[in-house]
Amino acid sequence: MRVRRRKGAEEHLANNPHYVILNPEDAKGHWQEIFGNDKPIHIEVGSGKGAFITGMALQNPGINYIGIDIQVSVLSHALDKVLASEAENIRLLQVDGSSLTNYFADEEIDLLYLNFSDPWPKKKHAKRRLTYKTFLDTYKQILPEHGEIHLKTDNRGLFEYSLASFSQYGMVLKQVWLDLHASDYEGNVMTEYEQKFSDKGQVIYRVEAMF
Amino acid sequence: MRVRRRKGAEEHLANNPHYVILNPEDAKGHWQEIFGNDKPIHIEVGSGKGAFITGMALQNPGINYIGIDIQVSVLSHALDKVLASEAENIRLLQVDGSSLTNYFADEEIDLLYLNFSDPWPKKKHAKRRLTYKTFLDTYKQILPEHGEIHLKTDNRGLFEYSLASFSQYGMVLKQVWLDLHASDYEGNVMTEYEQKFSDKGQVIYRVEAMF
Repeated sequence: MRVRRRKGAEEHLANNPHYVILNPEDAKGHWQEIFGNDKPIHIEVGSGKGAFITGMALQNPGINYIGIDIQVSVLSHALDKVLASEAENIRLLQVDGSSLTNYFADEEIDLLYLNFSDPWPKKKHAKRRLTYKTFLDTYKQILPEHGEIHLKTDNRGLFEYSLASFSQYGMVLKQVWLDLHASDYEGNVMTEYEQKFSDKGQVIYRVEAMF
Repeated sequence: MRVRRRKGAEEHLANNPHYVILNPEDAKGHWQEIFGNDKPIHIEVGSGKGAFITGMALQNPGINYIGIDIQVSVLSHALDKVLASEAENIRLLQVDGSSLTNYFADEEIDLLYLNFSDPWPKKKHAKRRLTYKTFLDTYKQILPEHGEIHLKTDNRGLFEYSLASFSQYGMVLKQVWLDLHASDYEGNVMTEYEQKFSDKGQVIYRVEAMF
């Protein structure tokens, strides 16, 4: 997600250490302590402005959520949403999606969401797509056996690529949606992008894939 | 494919035993003899009026094609196309897709096409879909190790189902197209249905899946 640089974003994050984990390396293996309970932990890699993670946290109080984004300005907007929600089951992490094993112990995460990730449409940039095999290596390590990735996108090329990438990695596609909003899927929480693209009549793709 | 009953269809097939294999059980294990060469053999299960199989045969003289359909009237239309094409690398078979092991020996077939198969949209009819696991059992037996199924459809529900069914069977999705006609895929031979639905602006889905 590309957003305008936000003045004071870094200070905003630094001033809210309860929600924004400032020394993420130290959190590795200690996420249950951070949340103060042993509920399942779901993460969103590339959480953008936080509409999904906040909506999910309010909808599912029995699950803890961590929103991850590398961009400070984006994450500061997510923090606004988290603060407004008053949800106690969310934390935010300003780190890169390729280095998750630095911040999560093996099998510490129960489910991983990828929503409207950057499609990196050029073939030479395939390695940057969040469903490229090196990313899957990382996800597999922090998820349990048969852990799942739930992905949504409006981007045809990224979805085509991700289905094949999951499958070629040995993952099993549990279910595929080729027009999520026209389906009978219940409880969908929309991201900012999803709302915008859906309003334009764009179909939304979704897949649940299992290691 | 539903078509009007065609008068004289059975006689038409019976009168062309060179192209229409009339005792298909006897052909099992002898397809190379029938074609008179050892070129690879590709089959289309549900070949309808034959536009795909005939077009493919003309495009690829190095491959032998067998069009399979249970409906006599439909197959008689396909026979017209085969006769008009003068292609020597096509044969037709009026049998059911669920009983292919009666007509083909293990690994006798090199590639299997499913084009615009009946979607059987009701859940209770899932077993009739040509990508249901019992059909995959049959296909696996007559294909070589790592044999492939190439599927096209305009039906969203059937495509969603088929991707998950292939994957859950242990097949690997080599490549997925979510809008075939907008892609750079070359050499596509259209079926009658494909032409019709594409003209209406419907997207065409395609997948290459490997055992």
